[in-house]
Amino acid sequence: MPKSPIPRKSVYRLSLYQRALQRLRDNGVPTVSSAALAKAAGVKPTQLRKDLTHVGHFGIRGLGYDVEALSASLTATLGMTTLQPVILVGAGNLGVALLHYEGFAKEGFEIVAAFDTDPQRCLAAGDKTPLLGMGDLKAFVESRLIKMVILAVPATAAQEAANELVSAGIQGILNFSPIILHVPDGVVVNNVDLAIELENLSYFIK
Amino acid sequence: MPKSPIPRKSVYRLSLYQRALQRLRDNGVPTVSSAALAKAAGVKPTQLRKDLTHVGHFGIRGLGYDVEALSASLTATLGMTTLQPVILVGAGNLGVALLHYEGFAKEGFEIVAAFDTDPQRCLAAGDKTPLLGMGDLKAFVESRLIKMVILAVPATAAQEAANELVSAGIQGILNFSPIILHVPDGVVVNNVDLAIELENLSYFIK
Repeated sequence: MPKSPIPRKSVYRLSLYQRALQRLRDNGVPTVSSAALAKAAGVKPTQLRKDLTHVGHFGIRGLGYDVEALSASLTATLGMTTLQPVILVGAGNLGVALLHYEGFAKEGFEIVAAFDTDPQRCLAAGDKTPLLGMGDLKAFVESRLIKMVILAVPATAAQEAANELVSAGIQGILNFSPIILHVPDGVVVNNVDLAIELENLSYFIK
Repeated sequence: MPKSPIPRKSVYRLSLYQRALQRLRDNGVPTVSSAALAKAAGVKPTQLRKDLTHVGHFGIRGLGYDVEALSASLTATLGMTTLQPVILVGAGNLGVALLHYEGFAKEGFEIVAAFDTDPQRCLAAGDKTPLLGMGDLKAFVESRLIKMVILAVPATAAQEAANELVSAGIQGILNFSPIILHVPDGVVVNNVDLAIELENLSYFIK
């Protein structure tokens, strides 16, 4: 994994702050206190202040943060001006739902193609994303310089698909299969294990 | 939120260890070193050893952990013997995909009903889960003593839906809408923000 001076969890929270700031800006709010911004992002104020030291912003006591300036710093840090094209591998129920997930387009991510072992698989009517066979994967990833993939294949097929993706040059995998993928150093995997999220919730409400 | 002696992130990782142990047990492996178990779960060995102190397991130097015994302790700690019934609110693309997500059933979770503002909405053919209108929500949650919900409505409708759910007695929300929900103390929200997961990945591979 490329060395980063900012801890992974902090980067995640910086995205949350950025989203909250965008809402404030849309509503014409010029400044925000750390307490209010922390609340909007669902974190503790001490956590927020600590995270924001990574982007060199400390706020002004009694005035809070300048919404525009802080948002611009976060954009520079998170590099959202250079969003990556993404491919989807696995066009089953979950894959197709992710293809239509409104949050991706809203944040500027474009899923440029979908791949499946069965390229005849029927996507929802009116879908513009090309659906290709796994045999086309390597050439597509190489020619389009794709670095990121959303992986939504069954657990039994996930490691093999990951191997293919890595050998084609993929550097980042958002993994929805409920297994731990083994990948070489230099490749980043973010796991979204929905059953573990439910289990975790279940623990806290029992 | 009910007080818990185990930090939230540790509980999440305990679920990861439990899953890795289940695979080892299925393969007839009797003992496992902390290094091997940590690798299977995708965490550092020091983290694993620290987490396992919460369940009172320390392993035996040179022998590692007894797979059966550790798995039984984790089950007792995580309380997976008493899995909760779950409802789904929001039967759009993502909601329907979650209804079919193989990982939930595999871990013993049953989505007992789905709710939508449009109960005529067409689920995939052959689906056995009843689809009800939002007007039926409160009575259903109260009579079936439902405590957990998967919330997959559009962002603009999420807070209102959360308010209804909380007033009906829901204590845990797995939230797929890209907003921070405001809920009273005693209600737990786990957020799955898919666009933020992509953004985070994008940061680490740029």
